[in-house]
Amino acid sequence: MKSFLDEDFILQTETAKHIFHDYAEKLPIIDYHCHISPQEIYEDRRFETLGDVWFGGKQEDGSYFGDHYKWRLMRSNGIPEEMVTGREDELQRFKGFAETLTKAIGNPMYHWCNLELKKYFGITKPLTVQNAEEIWNKCNDMLQNDPEMTVRGLIRQSNVAYVGTTDDPTDSLEWHEKIANDDSIEFMVRPSFRPDKAINITKEGFKEYIVKLAETVGKRSLDSAEEVIDALIQRVEFFAAHGCVASDHGLDYIPFKMMTMAECNNAFTKVMNGKEITLDEAEGYQTALLLSLGKAYHKHGIAMELHYSCLRNMNERMFRLEGPDTGFDMIANNSCGGNIAKLMSELDKTGELPKTIIFSLNPADNAQIGTILGCFQSSEVPGKIQHGPAWWFNDTKSGMEEQMKSLANLGLLGNFIGMLTDSRSFLSYTRHDYFRRIMCNLIGEWVENGEYPNDEKALESIVSGISYYNAKRYFGI
Amino acid sequence: MKSFLDEDFILQTETAKHIFHDYAEKLPIIDYHCHISPQEIYEDRRFETLGDVWFGGKQEDGSYFGDHYKWRLMRSNGIPEEMVTGREDELQRFKGFAETLTKAIGNPMYHWCNLELKKYFGITKPLTVQNAEEIWNKCNDMLQNDPEMTVRGLIRQSNVAYVGTTDDPTDSLEWHEKIANDDSIEFMVRPSFRPDKAINITKEGFKEYIVKLAETVGKRSLDSAEEVIDALIQRVEFFAAHGCVASDHGLDYIPFKMMTMAECNNAFTKVMNGKEITLDEAEGYQTALLLSLGKAYHKHGIAMELHYSCLRNMNERMFRLEGPDTGFDMIANNSCGGNIAKLMSELDKTGELPKTIIFSLNPADNAQIGTILGCFQSSEVPGKIQHGPAWWFNDTKSGMEEQMKSLANLGLLGNFIGMLTDSRSFLSYTRHDYFRRIMCNLIGEWVENGEYPNDEKALESIVSGISYYNAKRYFGI
Amino acid sequence: MKSFLDEDFILQTETAKHIFHDYAEKLPIIDYHCHISPQEIYEDRRFETLGDVWFGGKQEDGSYFGDHYKWRLMRSNGIPEEMVTGREDELQRFKGFAETLTKAIGNPMYHWCNLELKKYFGITKPLTVQNAEEIWNKCNDMLQNDPEMTVRGLIRQSNVAYVGTTDDPTDSLEWHEKIANDDSIEFMVRPSFRPDKAINITKEGFKEYIVKLAETVGKRSLDSAEEVIDALIQRVEFFAAHGCVASDHGLDYIPFKMMTMAECNNAFTKVMNGKEITLDEAEGYQTALLLSLGKAYHKHGIAMELHYSCLRNMNERMFRLEGPDTGFDMIANNSCGGNIAKLMSELDKTGELPKTIIFSLNPADNAQIGTILGCFQSSEVPGKIQHGPAWWFNDTKSGMEEQMKSLANLGLLGNFIGMLTDSRSFLSYTRHDYFRRIMCNLIGEWVENGEYPNDEKALESIVSGISYYNAKRYFGI
Repeated sequence: MKSFLDEDFILQTETAKHIFHDYAEKLPIIDYHCHISPQEIYEDRRFETLGDVWFGGKQEDGSYFGDHYKWRLMRSNGIPEEMVTGREDELQRFKGFAETLTKAIGNPMYHWCNLELKKYFGITKPLTVQNAEEIWNKCNDMLQNDPEMTVRGLIRQSNVAYVGTTDDPTDSLEWHEKIANDDSIEFMVRPSFRPDKAINITKEGFKEYIVKLAETVGKRSLDSAEEVIDALIQRVEFFAAHGCVASDHGLDYIPFKMMTMAECNNAFTKVMNGKEITLDEAEGYQTALLLSLGKAYHKHGIAMELHYSCLRNMNERMFRLEGPDTGFDMIANNSCGGNIAKLMSELDKTGELPKTIIFSLNPADNAQIGTILGCFQSSEVPGKIQHGPAWWFNDTKSGMEEQMKSLANLGLLGNFIGMLTDSRSFLSYTRHDYFRRIMCNLIGEWVENGEYPNDEKALESIVSGISYYNAKRYFGI
Repeated sequence: MKSFLDEDFILQTETAKHIFHDYAEKLPIIDYHCHISPQEIYEDRRFETLGDVWFGGKQEDGSYFGDHYKWRLMRSNGIPEEMVTGREDELQRFKGFAETLTKAIGNPMYHWCNLELKKYFGITKPLTVQNAEEIWNKCNDMLQNDPEMTVRGLIRQSNVAYVGTTDDPTDSLEWHEKIANDDSIEFMVRPSFRPDKAINITKEGFKEYIVKLAETVGKRSLDSAEEVIDALIQRVEFFAAHGCVASDHGLDYIPFKMMTMAECNNAFTKVMNGKEITLDEAEGYQTALLLSLGKAYHKHGIAMELHYSCLRNMNERMFRLEGPDTGFDMIANNSCGGNIAKLMSELDKTGELPKTIIFSLNPADNAQIGTILGCFQSSEVPGKIQHGPAWWFNDTKSGMEEQMKSLANLGLLGNFIGMLTDSRSFLSYTRHDYFRRIMCNLIGEWVENGEYPNDEKALESIVSGISYYNAKRYFGI
Repeated sequence: MKSFLDEDFILQTETAKHIFHDYAEKLPIIDYHCHISPQEIYEDRRFETLGDVWFGGKQEDGSYFGDHYKWRLMRSNGIPEEMVTGREDELQRFKGFAETLTKAIGNPMYHWCNLELKKYFGITKPLTVQNAEEIWNKCNDMLQNDPEMTVRGLIRQSNVAYVGTTDDPTDSLEWHEKIANDDSIEFMVRPSFRPDKAINITKEGFKEYIVKLAETVGKRSLDSAEEVIDALIQRVEFFAAHGCVASDHGLDYIPFKMMTMAECNNAFTKVMNGKEITLDEAEGYQTALLLSLGKAYHKHGIAMELHYSCLRNMNERMFRLEGPDTGFDMIANNSCGGNIAKLMSELDKTGELPKTIIFSLNPADNAQIGTILGCFQSSEVPGKIQHGPAWWFNDTKSGMEEQMKSLANLGLLGNFIGMLTDSRSFLSYTRHDYFRRIMCNLIGEWVENGEYPNDEKALESIVSGISYYNAKRYFGI
């Protein structure tokens, strides 16, 4: 029996151990998509408790912020909401989480949490309700006192070379500038361009957002879809000037509806005047923005991430209470694969298709995505079109294995740009460790089974590439 | 090489063997969803032949009743219908089945049948066409003469604590009453509420059913959707008074269309007057019933099972000949996951969402279902919303593994309420044995691979919970 | 560690090795669906270079012909199009492919290519960029000089008993006739009937095709859907007289829309007059043709292959440049499973449902297809309705395993008619070897794990059946 969480965690074969320890483990991390705060990096925030880092919860201003993955798990164990997002008795909450975790056999949270406790706090026994208080005290003591346990210290410890944050086009990027000008920060921190609010023409808050976007580009108002596009492209340029190498689009599904710019302007005006628009009009507007932005990304060498197939805020009662991103989202079921290809084809016609990374929240889409890639690869960069790593609900051992097997079956695993954390926590870098172990285990198994030759050079190149070098080359960093 | 069907069948590791034999194997069975007859239990029916138990077929009244899983398999082997559902030469049919079974490598039927022969008849060699006659004679002799081989004897032998039958709202529950009043029956037999016929407003027989439902509640007629709902709620109360803890809804897909009660009444009246209604009207009526029933279930602590994504009676020629449930159904492909969430959200708004168990016949829906759960869990009971075990066509070794892995990835496997038989046969309890072996094998593999610690207490709790205690607590029995 | 590509390649257990080497390996190949040229067989073509066999590319007439699987892989590695389909420097292209292949860990192309090099050229080291030139020279030398390396020699070496080509209804079958009359050709070569162009009423080239079809049946024109059907049925008879045992339909999705023949004629006339038709009209016409052809196939004992869920030519720029079948297709996402069943039910009503083989390009449809089979099996032939082997993008180790597991779960794996190449190359017969290894490995694993008894006779029958005898019986060859 393998012991839990030892140095060979996940690694079942000698080849897996070799390629992990000798190649994958040592390489820096390029975390090209996450949700951490550049301000907290610049200010080198220190956390008071493990509860702050792991859970968060209801904030003093009444809003909710924190790790909704953990909240969901606690709710699944019947823990009342006041002990999930409420913060009255933090130790008790931690014990409730520990008790929950024991039932989470097969869940990546079990691995993530224990990996984090081991790596950052030196705790080698799995968290249980029995040792929860001891662990709580030890971790809090370290967080409060250990000089290496600030935000920057954690990033340094994690051997992170690059952090790609997620930023709104209206963001001033002031914290990114400060970081760039601070020589003591050795890792790169770069903004990513996420214009969802400008694209979601039928969602609440659209009009207010357009006002804000106008202000950002120094205009009194934006009076047409065209002006919105111009403003966004200005911001793409601003982001590019700040070293942005990636954009991100979170869409319910990928639309594709060609409309004239006059029709787009008309739809935009209707919405700004408080009128309803049809689904076709909304999709026409969205398609126009995606196409214009795609071209701008291509011009600036920015990769376009497309995330889709999520249904958000499905529990209306809880949405009213806690707002978005509090753990009430689900996987959708769409048939928009053809639209993705049409969008890409439209951009490719004029040679303006940017590097593109495709993520669906529905794992049943893996094979389809794998076949879209092959339709749009080019000599601009090897693996120009990428199947994004297993995302969110799929960010599990079997989810990652399925994504990599699918990618290997349908394309070149050797060109995969690998993992990201998508995280809101400074302890989540162990997910790269977890991913690399799973990747090395998969490749090791193939080699041991005689499905790929034991060719040292080739294996080193593949493993090092997926761990680090492919992303470095892909993003040009 | 492991030998076939020994005591460690399916159990590949020492941990798997340990947790199965020391925990799972010994626990009683809670079979919370099946289709066996309470009358046959009360009357302690004795079967004449293994053909009666295993196959059934064309009845004397011209109807067809029996195990359509086995019929399908025989048809797949090119056996003519008169030897599948016809009963002229039962031994010959049994031999044909034995010959078919030999080709059914990888099919759960191979395991089920041989498990049943071993457990109930002491037959340790796999069934083949060569030994079919010997086995036929031995089984029939035992069925006819062994005092333990009556219906009650079989249930007792199987260590069954609870049987949940499937019953129409118009059922008098007389047999359940008789069983409840018979002290010699030590296991629980409880009705489950299945109001499909009242919900299927566009299906044949609806009007006749409404007349029957009216009679059941002592009314001359039901003249509106509202009156149908009132009648159904009366029957929910009647069922609850008879110990009902579960309801079941078998739907092509889950609808969600909010309509006013006046609109629902209008749709109902149209149908009762023989007029066509639109899809929206049908879905509006169905949604209204599901919401009203959901609230009633919540009030009485009854769990709501939602089964969907089946296309029934797809072979029209055979449907005309043999009627429904004769082996001509298939997996559908729906995108109704969002509707499920909307229905649950609507019920949750007023705190009236009952315990809910979600089953799709399409295994591609596993991940989506896993993410719906997490949106509606609450502190009413741990694991309030459940992903139902692998159902019908998915009730296979790999189907169960996929369902459990998906559940583990996305929620708490430790709170899973586990298996049911969905069966029409008194020999099917070995499916619980089969499930527990598969579950222990999966967990054992994780532990042996170092993916979960070898924590005796935690493993006992998880394995015993999934085998028995979780369902006991969940249904409050 | 198993060595790569030795005689036990893919075979992990002793049982797997035994059943492969003792049963599967020795049996002839029935390749019931491929795209190779009967003319090249008759003329016993010899290839100049491995580039001709493996890649092809831009032809002298400006058209593109060759193995688009390999083109896609090279494009995924960033190789410029002139080195993918261009043929200026063939050795350089080969080196580029070798470099690409090294990154294709987990991709079936890695296995296919090295299997082909081993079987036909005796090369036992994996292809790399280092040994590419040596291999290139050796292969070309053998192709040009070895008497066994002509088309017929390759087929003979591969122990092929039957080749089913893919032919248009307008084909004269002259090359098939010549082959049939040539006693020196010992393997069977038979046409398969593929009438897609007559069914694709809304696709470009339909009118021109109808003119050609009219000519083929000696008529000045075809003036109604009815006349098209009559013409096609004449051609079915012509093909049947030339030994045709299979037809093939490649459809975006399977339609089912019942229309009267008058309505079909009307739709047809509109299209022939250059007018638009509705989707319903198109589907009605297509359904009528599928039903009429299905009946004709049934009459002549011809199996009907239904291939669906592909989106073709998705990169418009490349389609304009290179035309169809150049590597720009993707998996679609349809919900047409119910239509497949309705089509089959309609044919079954009158007892005219032909043997049917169902293939979806979307692996998420596996389970649904597995359940369609069981609705239409009959005593005409065991396994009358088949789940086609893992097709195109699914033709991978895991894709084949998934298809076989799904089939085993839901029906009788023992009646499976097994593999085909779908190939455009005379070296692709190793795919049968690859398939048989994967099949034997799967079955061997079940036996070693005690999930099926170690019953020599039963295993021989199952393995030999899937390798050869089931297809032989199914197609009556």
